[in-house]
Amino acid sequence: MRRAVALAARGLGHTSPNPVVGCVILDAEGQPAGEGWHQRAGGPHAEVHALRAAGERARGGTALVTLEPCNHTGRTGPCARALLDAGIARVRYAVADPTGQARGGAATLAAAGVDVAAGPLTDEAEAVNEAWLTAMRRGRPFVLWKYAATLDGRSAAADGTSRWITSAAARADVHRLRAEADAVVVGSGTLRADDPHLAVRDRDGVTQPLRVAVDTDATALKPDARILDDAAPTLVAVAEDADTGHLPAGTDTARLPRARAGRGLDIAALLAALHDRGVRSVLLEGGPTLAGAFLAAGAVDKVVGYLAPVLLGAGPAALADAGITTIAQALRMDTADVTRLGPDLRITAVPAAPTTTLAEEN
Amino acid sequence: MRRAVALAARGLGHTSPNPVVGCVILDAEGQPAGEGWHQRAGGPHAEVHALRAAGERARGGTALVTLEPCNHTGRTGPCARALLDAGIARVRYAVADPTGQARGGAATLAAAGVDVAAGPLTDEAEAVNEAWLTAMRRGRPFVLWKYAATLDGRSAAADGTSRWITSAAARADVHRLRAEADAVVVGSGTLRADDPHLAVRDRDGVTQPLRVAVDTDATALKPDARILDDAAPTLVAVAEDADTGHLPAGTDTARLPRARAGRGLDIAALLAALHDRGVRSVLLEGGPTLAGAFLAAGAVDKVVGYLAPVLLGAGPAALADAGITTIAQALRMDTADVTRLGPDLRITAVPAAPTTTLAEEN
Repeated sequence: MRRAVALAARGLGHTSPNPVVGCVILDAEGQPAGEGWHQRAGGPHAEVHALRAAGERARGGTALVTLEPCNHTGRTGPCARALLDAGIARVRYAVADPTGQARGGAATLAAAGVDVAAGPLTDEAEAVNEAWLTAMRRGRPFVLWKYAATLDGRSAAADGTSRWITSAAARADVHRLRAEADAVVVGSGTLRADDPHLAVRDRDGVTQPLRVAVDTDATALKPDARILDDAAPTLVAVAEDADTGHLPAGTDTARLPRARAGRGLDIAALLAALHDRGVRSVLLEGGPTLAGAFLAAGAVDKVVGYLAPVLLGAGPAALADAGITTIAQALRMDTADVTRLGPDLRITAVPAAPTTTLAEEN
Repeated sequence: MRRAVALAARGLGHTSPNPVVGCVILDAEGQPAGEGWHQRAGGPHAEVHALRAAGERARGGTALVTLEPCNHTGRTGPCARALLDAGIARVRYAVADPTGQARGGAATLAAAGVDVAAGPLTDEAEAVNEAWLTAMRRGRPFVLWKYAATLDGRSAAADGTSRWITSAAARADVHRLRAEADAVVVGSGTLRADDPHLAVRDRDGVTQPLRVAVDTDATALKPDARILDDAAPTLVAVAEDADTGHLPAGTDTARLPRARAGRGLDIAALLAALHDRGVRSVLLEGGPTLAGAFLAAGAVDKVVGYLAPVLLGAGPAALADAGITTIAQALRMDTADVTRLGPDLRITAVPAAPTTTLAEEN
């Protein structure tokens, strides 16, 4: 199963709106006979790849799969059916399928006489599918907020310069996060200050994430902005009443309601629009105002901070107003990981209390 | 020698203006015969304690000492003399004495026929005496800036509340730093906001640090401020022209020149005044303005940041103006250590470029 989890990870960034899945087939003697992973949305599922590789050796064998085999809408679906057709005698799946559409694969297999059980390595398999599972459970994309800052919490110097606070090792790690995300989101302040490109560089076979420019009043984005090039798809999210006449013809635009309080767009509506487009994981890259709005909306599932051993003493903070005015309201998190990347630290944390779901917000 | 370094560490916080020193005596067969450490300024040196414990077994034996034995002002000093009188045949010292007053002990011993050599464990012995060695080399006290902040660099919420951002484990660690320091320094903003006490709590046998209130205009400190109680000595540092008539009679006051640029006192003059009082290590506890002034003056030797996995999005930053306006001027540091303390992170860093000495500044 550990191998199956590693195979599943190869699909990160390529499979949305589907989960990542890995599968290893053992023959009747318990020897590895085939393996596969779900490589891209629309392509064969992991089980199908693995069964093809195993061929006749699958008969009487075992399928180790990171997610419960699918069983579409009451009829016998491709994976449960494929496993039965191949003569698989035992199935172990690390994580049960939480979706209404696909679950029931285990029951179908058991009814056909297959020895089916959940586990092992549930935690590892949950972790590799964290974004998709969170999206299924919350009904909105998984949101990872990434920031880079000095030890005193600055994301730029007083004059706005910020290249580079963090090291090349940290910046390469950000490209990995982008490559694994379905969408990369930035706000108008970042669009104005940095004219970011946001495509993934220096990676073979990458599925470029959807670049999302949140430009509520459509005043930050210039017609020649780098984010509007054709290196990756781009969505411009504006308020319903914004004037977008200056943007190039054919710019993909989402018109969304404004936030009920404060500036900017309604974050829940933005995430719902992305979910409708098949986005299951969002990398929120900034800046501080947009991150504050996401946090205030309870819409951040994980925080990855790159902290450089640098002091500035002045300059914009990494995070702006998140609706917190006193220490009792502080957003407390659990530190999941601390890793040194060159001279920098990467701190991964998750909110200590569950974030609110869209249903609870509305 | 590792044992001698551990013995030396027991003296931290008690020996200024002297260094901490540990000593182990081995008998002629190489068996441990006695050990000791410099326990407090004015008390016997480490070698004397260890020789007393070893008694006659010292004859023909070896002395392992963390710092070169002293050799006061051309005459045969107490430690070199004491080692000779006890019949010690071999001496190993981890770090050479950098001071003009005491050095030469090794030469004196060698001239008397003792087998003397430097090492081993020089790095460990340097580390335990970091504050004193830095003070000797720079001609001013060693300065450790300690701060506590959220992941977004805030030291308090928007309404000024800050109890508690960090955990009990982190706060206990701060008391350890205070107990090891000769002086604890705070500025007027902290005096106004927190009315801090700054004495060391919950530690047996502690030598209380000198509490230093930097109150340039003598407007922050109230006559009933907690820092003015008798739990520990206190020094109030004010400008030469400040009116201190409201402070209690007998308040220990240092009148110092104002900074040539900006607000506050001249940092070099403040450190010189502390050095003259025998202070060899300063724990700079805040707040952000005073820390910025120390950093701008090149007068911070080490930074210890306690980072809590908390986000605020508003509130005062941990560090204010340090004279840095653009990224090229950023104060870059080397991370010496990262330790998890309960839920928090403790990051220890040292400036990547040497800080300026007072001589270079003047």
